[in-house]
Amino acid sequence: MSALTDRVVAGDVRAAARLMRLIEDGQPEAEAALRELWPKTGRAQMVGITGNPGAGKSTLVDRLVAHLRAQGRTVGVLAVDPTSPFTGGAILGDRIRMQDHALDPGVFIRSFATRGQLGGLSRATSDCARVLDAMGKDVVLIETVGVGQDEVEVCRLAHTTVVVVVPGLGDDIQAIKAGILEVADLFAVNKSDREGADRTVRDLRSMLELNHAMGTDVGKHEIAIVKCVASRGEGVAELWAAIDAHYQSLRKGDGLLAREAQRARHDLVEVLRERLLQVALKKLAQEGAQLDDLALRIARRETDPYSVADEAARL
Amino acid sequence: MSALTDRVVAGDVRAAARLMRLIEDGQPEAEAALRELWPKTGRAQMVGITGNPGAGKSTLVDRLVAHLRAQGRTVGVLAVDPTSPFTGGAILGDRIRMQDHALDPGVFIRSFATRGQLGGLSRATSDCARVLDAMGKDVVLIETVGVGQDEVEVCRLAHTTVVVVVPGLGDDIQAIKAGILEVADLFAVNKSDREGADRTVRDLRSMLELNHAMGTDVGKHEIAIVKCVASRGEGVAELWAAIDAHYQSLRKGDGLLAREAQRARHDLVEVLRERLLQVALKKLAQEGAQLDDLALRIARRETDPYSVADEAARL
Repeated sequence: MSALTDRVVAGDVRAAARLMRLIEDGQPEAEAALRELWPKTGRAQMVGITGNPGAGKSTLVDRLVAHLRAQGRTVGVLAVDPTSPFTGGAILGDRIRMQDHALDPGVFIRSFATRGQLGGLSRATSDCARVLDAMGKDVVLIETVGVGQDEVEVCRLAHTTVVVVVPGLGDDIQAIKAGILEVADLFAVNKSDREGADRTVRDLRSMLELNHAMGTDVGKHEIAIVKCVASRGEGVAELWAAIDAHYQSLRKGDGLLAREAQRARHDLVEVLRERLLQVALKKLAQEGAQLDDLALRIARRETDPYSVADEAARL
Repeated sequence: MSALTDRVVAGDVRAAARLMRLIEDGQPEAEAALRELWPKTGRAQMVGITGNPGAGKSTLVDRLVAHLRAQGRTVGVLAVDPTSPFTGGAILGDRIRMQDHALDPGVFIRSFATRGQLGGLSRATSDCARVLDAMGKDVVLIETVGVGQDEVEVCRLAHTTVVVVVPGLGDDIQAIKAGILEVADLFAVNKSDREGADRTVRDLRSMLELNHAMGTDVGKHEIAIVKCVASRGEGVAELWAAIDAHYQSLRKGDGLLAREAQRARHDLVEVLRERLLQVALKKLAQEGAQLDDLALRIARRETDPYSVADEAARL
């Protein structure tokens, strides 16, 4: 093992942060390190926390961290932030609040901005979750805004995905995407001291029953709905108990290995795609065909993407 | 040319609908057809319309269609809908309203649900836009909910991308993602008869100025902000004039070819990735290594994704 991966496995925070930066920047050293770390992964309990902006995800994650730390478990947090350079305010505030845990060596927190990472986000997040796993964190919490395709993709790497909703957003429940429903293992109704919390629970319940009646929940565990008020710490222990119950039910039988294999399949396909593309582009370049020139020829309708792909696949 | 592509080029609606279904289902015939159609593409003016749910995008698209038809231009509409099987209501209503144009042979409208299409959505939308282009539509409008990575990706295929916002969502402007800002060529402030419309325009203006000061808008045209009330048809002609002005400015000089080359580059990389992956998986299978078995071995930590990728790249 290299010095960097040795230090990551020993739990060194600065080494982990450095490796995550290499991953985010797409540096080749990152892959070498991840390959070395691979046998050390597969131990952490991975939990996804997703939901619309304003659902109180950060506060909930903050409270879950405190709950887990009180139980003596170490925690890694990856927060995928859809911040623009113009936001600042609220989201920065959230992150600063999380820094309550900044001096606790049992907690590692890292934020990702989605800026400039179109497409590569889920891959980078997945790889960074592996780093936290290899560091020996007992639990990894992955917080994402559950609105886009790529964000949904991020949830697929969790053992348990919690979708956070708030009362009084009846229409929003309607607007919960099919993709989100497909990944939800558990619902948290946050801010449930607000009016309409019981109605939200009922709406979710009937939605799940409809889903069940339509047969679109085949192979899924029963989905629990937990009420909480994260800002006051209410319901957080109950939420964790439900998350853990889901995880334990996966551990019985082949559930855990099946999820891990599904994730490995996804990782493999991603790694393969990228590797093969790089090899093909290099071969094309050796034949004197640069990507930008090919694109220009296609744009001018002198050739088409399919014929170029045929040629590259033959090389 | 095959009978199907001949009919598409002749503007046959049923042939186009059939080809789009083949594209959405990822059928191999789709690729053969797209390859044949390639030389017939590159003529349509492509316009992306994006924004948060509730911004009134469908109504705006509806009015733009009416405006363009009144000018005698033919129009194709692709609406990327984040509908869950549970929604129905509002979104179905929107689509039915669009059917005002259903009997007009100069208009072709198609909706995509994002359900089950994680990742493949932007590719399918791009390919369907090419079909509308090959059909001879003068203008192709692509409507997406601009919240996720994949939806942003969809916008990259447009010549002009309009971001639709509404007044009274001051916080939402803060929450506009960097990705969306990067693709915005034009802002439409819809429902601008509501209180706060002028403030929204001012907020957008200062955001753009900040963006300019930070140097993140290099190479971009000046971004216009147009107020409209789509439900009453107000400001629609002005919005189209601004869209067209942006398009005409691209046509001067190399702007249009540069955008087209950028899009061709993206298409080529996507086609290549998929082609190379299929070839590699076939070779691996011939060596007795199925994807699912490999994933299981990786999950058991008997190997890792990087070593498997190395092996596949050597085959």
